[in-house]
Amino acid sequence: MLAGIFSAYSQTNLTTFVDPFIGTENGGNVFLGAAVPFGMVKLGPDCGNNDNNSGYYRDQNINGFSHTHVSGTGGGSKYGNILLMPESGDLQISQFSSARTDEVAKTGYYSAFLSRYQVKAELTATHSVGFHRYTFPEGQVRHILIDAGHFLEVGKEWGESQEFVGSEVRILSNHEIEGYSRIRGGWNKAGAYTVYFYAMFDQEAKETGTWKNGKLQKGNPVQPDSGEKTGAYLSFYPSSGKTVQVKVGISFLSVGKAKLNVESETPGWNFDVVRDQAEKKWNSQLEKIRIEGGSDEAKKMLYTALYHSMLMPTNKTGENPLWKSDEPYYDDLYAIWDTYRTTHPLLTLISPEIQRDMVRSMIDIYRYEGYMPDARSGNVTGRTQGGSNSDIIIADAFVKGLKDIDYETAFQAMIKNAEVPPGGNEQKEGRGGIPDYNSLGYVSTSYERAGTRTVEYSACDFATATLAKGLGKNDLYEKYLKRSSNWKNLWRPVESYGAKGFIWPRKKDGTWEEKFSTLQPGSWSDFFYESQSWELSFYVPHDVAGLVQMCGGPKAFESRLDTFFVKSKPNERGWMDFYNVNNEPGFMTPILYNYIGKPAKSNAQVRQIITKYFGTGRDGLSGNDDSGAMSSWLAFHLMGFYPVAGQDLYLIAAPYFEKTTVSIADGKQFTILARNLNAKNKFVQSAKLNGQAIDRAWFRHSEIINGATLELTMGESPSNWGTSNLPETTNK
Amino acid sequence: MLAGIFSAYSQTNLTTFVDPFIGTENGGNVFLGAAVPFGMVKLGPDCGNNDNNSGYYRDQNINGFSHTHVSGTGGGSKYGNILLMPESGDLQISQFSSARTDEVAKTGYYSAFLSRYQVKAELTATHSVGFHRYTFPEGQVRHILIDAGHFLEVGKEWGESQEFVGSEVRILSNHEIEGYSRIRGGWNKAGAYTVYFYAMFDQEAKETGTWKNGKLQKGNPVQPDSGEKTGAYLSFYPSSGKTVQVKVGISFLSVGKAKLNVESETPGWNFDVVRDQAEKKWNSQLEKIRIEGGSDEAKKMLYTALYHSMLMPTNKTGENPLWKSDEPYYDDLYAIWDTYRTTHPLLTLISPEIQRDMVRSMIDIYRYEGYMPDARSGNVTGRTQGGSNSDIIIADAFVKGLKDIDYETAFQAMIKNAEVPPGGNEQKEGRGGIPDYNSLGYVSTSYERAGTRTVEYSACDFATATLAKGLGKNDLYEKYLKRSSNWKNLWRPVESYGAKGFIWPRKKDGTWEEKFSTLQPGSWSDFFYESQSWELSFYVPHDVAGLVQMCGGPKAFESRLDTFFVKSKPNERGWMDFYNVNNEPGFMTPILYNYIGKPAKSNAQVRQIITKYFGTGRDGLSGNDDSGAMSSWLAFHLMGFYPVAGQDLYLIAAPYFEKTTVSIADGKQFTILARNLNAKNKFVQSAKLNGQAIDRAWFRHSEIINGATLELTMGESPSNWGTSNLPETTNK
Repeated sequence: MLAGIFSAYSQTNLTTFVDPFIGTENGGNVFLGAAVPFGMVKLGPDCGNNDNNSGYYRDQNINGFSHTHVSGTGGGSKYGNILLMPESGDLQISQFSSARTDEVAKTGYYSAFLSRYQVKAELTATHSVGFHRYTFPEGQVRHILIDAGHFLEVGKEWGESQEFVGSEVRILSNHEIEGYSRIRGGWNKAGAYTVYFYAMFDQEAKETGTWKNGKLQKGNPVQPDSGEKTGAYLSFYPSSGKTVQVKVGISFLSVGKAKLNVESETPGWNFDVVRDQAEKKWNSQLEKIRIEGGSDEAKKMLYTALYHSMLMPTNKTGENPLWKSDEPYYDDLYAIWDTYRTTHPLLTLISPEIQRDMVRSMIDIYRYEGYMPDARSGNVTGRTQGGSNSDIIIADAFVKGLKDIDYETAFQAMIKNAEVPPGGNEQKEGRGGIPDYNSLGYVSTSYERAGTRTVEYSACDFATATLAKGLGKNDLYEKYLKRSSNWKNLWRPVESYGAKGFIWPRKKDGTWEEKFSTLQPGSWSDFFYESQSWELSFYVPHDVAGLVQMCGGPKAFESRLDTFFVKSKPNERGWMDFYNVNNEPGFMTPILYNYIGKPAKSNAQVRQIITKYFGTGRDGLSGNDDSGAMSSWLAFHLMGFYPVAGQDLYLIAAPYFEKTTVSIADGKQFTILARNLNAKNKFVQSAKLNGQAIDRAWFRHSEIINGATLELTMGESPSNWGTSNLPETTNK
Repeated sequence: MLAGIFSAYSQTNLTTFVDPFIGTENGGNVFLGAAVPFGMVKLGPDCGNNDNNSGYYRDQNINGFSHTHVSGTGGGSKYGNILLMPESGDLQISQFSSARTDEVAKTGYYSAFLSRYQVKAELTATHSVGFHRYTFPEGQVRHILIDAGHFLEVGKEWGESQEFVGSEVRILSNHEIEGYSRIRGGWNKAGAYTVYFYAMFDQEAKETGTWKNGKLQKGNPVQPDSGEKTGAYLSFYPSSGKTVQVKVGISFLSVGKAKLNVESETPGWNFDVVRDQAEKKWNSQLEKIRIEGGSDEAKKMLYTALYHSMLMPTNKTGENPLWKSDEPYYDDLYAIWDTYRTTHPLLTLISPEIQRDMVRSMIDIYRYEGYMPDARSGNVTGRTQGGSNSDIIIADAFVKGLKDIDYETAFQAMIKNAEVPPGGNEQKEGRGGIPDYNSLGYVSTSYERAGTRTVEYSACDFATATLAKGLGKNDLYEKYLKRSSNWKNLWRPVESYGAKGFIWPRKKDGTWEEKFSTLQPGSWSDFFYESQSWELSFYVPHDVAGLVQMCGGPKAFESRLDTFFVKSKPNERGWMDFYNVNNEPGFMTPILYNYIGKPAKSNAQVRQIITKYFGTGRDGLSGNDDSGAMSSWLAFHLMGFYPVAGQDLYLIAAPYFEKTTVSIADGKQFTILARNLNAKNKFVQSAKLNGQAIDRAWFRHSEIINGATLELTMGESPSNWGTSNLPETTNK
């Protein structure tokens, strides 16, 4: 019976509902190209001036196809290493970019026609190997270049760009090239990383050569590293067929490992088989959520959101050049500040083994480097934007019962975060400004990002208290629970647009900063990071009831939320005043109405946001996807509920599908039914959990983890459901 | 005329006065093997259980010859990478060590007869290449193994050992092997470094093979990195001659660069030419000091001391895998805590361009990593033992007029040291405990090494004040000059053996720690690092006059010094109570008598120390040479004077040679004459500087830098010379 179910499901190719172009414009910055879930190789086009984080521009020339990317990030760029470009006709080793037509992007596949060279480029990938198929025009000399000096260069103007360190290329035979690119800097202002490659061609070249620092050296097979940009090419004469295929193995260890990756992951030369395998890998992840009903648009949004949520972080297990360990190794946790809210809770729900491995990897980083990362890329930790949000990921794993995690060591890492100042570079790891926070109860204006830090440290302290309680460390539980109220120390009873009480800058001597306003935005060196006081004064996910009180009670809180959403509009900086859909600090705000017994308003607000800001076009994400943070927010709300990260709690808004079946741990399923759902019937009238009526707009992870059905009955208008039994902070 | 002088000097091969065996026993831990000055390759035997820091043991089997070493260090080991071993007869890939006879060590040359294999091994080196010549017995199959899994393993018991990360080997042809070894940890508890190699043999092998994790794979040419130990071998049959030569290029960038190093540094196959070049490089350094008179023993001690002072740090310019820069790059500053006192002042005097490059390298490390190192090895900064002694190196360069150094940036780096806490890992860089130091005026017992830190931070603050003054930053000069008196805040008027007043542990609340004694020794986690209060209470090099006062005036100070030296004896821990000749904090103490007008007592004390603890045997250094720190201390005192690091000041004891000619900057010479010097006449009766009588037992760098002659007239007894015109702290 079970076998029958599985085989029925596996016949559905859900990848057809993924449109990788969604979010490639309008600032979404999602990666476009060929990759497998959490793949090390993300092979895609780098375009124009290489000054987009994803590499991709729709309307600018393609410079070639590089093997490493991140997805959805902003600020300075990372990666864009080991770029291949096919050419026909005369060899060009610089300014070889081409316009393209006929661009196609699918899960694990990308193709475009390069009009300058009349070459059809097709890309697919395994975990560590980029597989290229280039179809050339008849009768012309053909070349394939490998540029080891290439990288993405966003952020030069503001000091976050990558910088070149060195490179090396070596032509091993007339069908093999190896080498590396060594780059430092980038958004996380990191030390150097090295991307090694081994490229194997499916035919023998007639001519080969290399270049260094832009100077062509025909026939010279080797360019050793002298701190210059290098490259190599193979040339094939017209007679040898129309296509040239190349497999490029990538490694962060060595050229030898890169070659091993090619041999073990792509033994043959059948492009279509490799492409099919990539698609199957995606499908096996997408199958974790199966839906019935709902619009085609919603379906496409959901599966594309799932796809985007699994491009990052990068599984580099077996590719860690820093230490030898039996633990998994994930890189490109970029940034946890973005992803702890919805991406990791999504993985915890649908791929708990992967989430477990990510958590173990973070703990292993603590073991060897002294802190868990808050962001990490290119094998280097940095930059910390606000709190030490790894704490919340640990707490989330713990309260949701993830097994095979060394929680005692994780707890040590959390205590380290909470107690040991990270030192000179406070953007690297740990909690900057904690000498203040731990003595005054708030981060004073002597430190940058004092507001963001204070409210986030409070939330992180709650996560630490959660683990302390779970591990039976009662004194520490009391200590950190108390500290989790520290956000109140920055609460000042000022008024703004009818609301009273805001997080406000406070000096070391306890007095308030007077030159400040509730809508004053900020960044790295300001009071708020990527936020303002209207937005961040809603951020107390671990004590919303306390927040409601501080705001003057449920009525005042409701009015404040209303104002927040109604007044949301772009400001002079192109940022948003009040609510900002693409900004992680406000991720949970639309559903906060649940805490005052107004789930219908949450629902209406969420639906309005999705309608206004999300879609199936290239502009379908209204800002950086942030490694799938936005996408996973969307995926949850399309399914009808939302996770409170670090707590055993989900809040219910309303689903977009009549039936959603989520495969959770141990072969169990969590089914959400929305009876009578249609274009008009968007409001929950009543709910049953496992057949029992529930009057609440929330449920606990523990209530679904062994399999469950949540049955919602929908109607046209808001109802009394969820108005009295309010969600409570768990783990207290 | 000048040409004549130079050619006369260059005919002297001063390397014949170097005995590399001095300091190889009795804990000296000096490197034994083939290297050039500051060379990246230090090729020598690793013996026994690979648990000596230098690799070398006289009486234990040789495991092979590895290419990277440090010299004179204690604690956990570093390096010992890429080990070669010749074998005759059956191939052995484990337990292949051999006893040896006929060991010879010269500058740039080492040889031994490996009795197990009947092979004569000869080694020489260029900067980046190890050149091996193995002479095999007739009629046997011959093998040469390259073990990429080898490294030195001192410190496992106390958590300072190196750890294996990964390795790779690849046989490129029947006379070429390349690969790498990746190791982390070691004394400085560092992240991973990677040593790449390219080995070229002078003849074709008949058989080749590799191994992984101890398993032989005959004929398999490649072992890609899978986190296991790997190795490779070439086998040569009897017919092809008695010797096999191998050139092994080392690089910290890549195998390609390692090969380039072989091609550019050792184009031919003439071992003797390479050996001769190495010897010439040493001679050109040794020639900086030319002597007449004195005993053969003193001569040997002097030139061997010079040799030992130039094995470290390692010039890795062009080999920095971390960033691209036009600045020089030196690694294995190991540790500046040891070498700032005498090694760097020696280089400043005789090789100012090299010292300038080292300083520039330290500043460049600050630019890219945020702090200057206090210790660094394997391209990773750490560990800081006491103060931020790079400050004193900067001040030393500045007051001695070293040109082409960006002192403004250096000053920023010093301010960073002084003001910005280094964070979670306070042993990595910067000043641990400065929140205390900068608020209380001392490091309280809440921090480890509080005593050492407080007195050293005071001295470092004086260096910072020195630079502030020189750069015209008067406010900062006043600030740091004031802070340089902070050592007084730990001065407690306790009595011990007739002396009163000692550096003493003090709590955060200002009260003293009662459970403490003046001879209580310590290490990383204690009040004093590698010291006790009797020793460290003499360490105020920037205000000896103030120290004399605090001790109760000149008489009390003299008596205190007398007690210190008279009572010196080994304690239960094998360490010394009171004076400890091989411990850097006491380096300057023997000559402190100069500050109370008793240079004859300094002189007598220094001579007694040299007689007792130094010599020309293998035990000729009585403890870790510490990258030449001990040796440079000795070199100065044999020449008759001693530098006060960071100040424009040298103190005179008395020379061991009738004439010492020191080549200083710009072709100038500083000549020290000791008239009437003989076995009895050891005391200075009078002195002239450039023909003018001077009544003082000190001189300034500014007095000699344009060329000078110091003429001392010696006699049997102490005289009145130097009793009234006392040395004063300069730069104040």
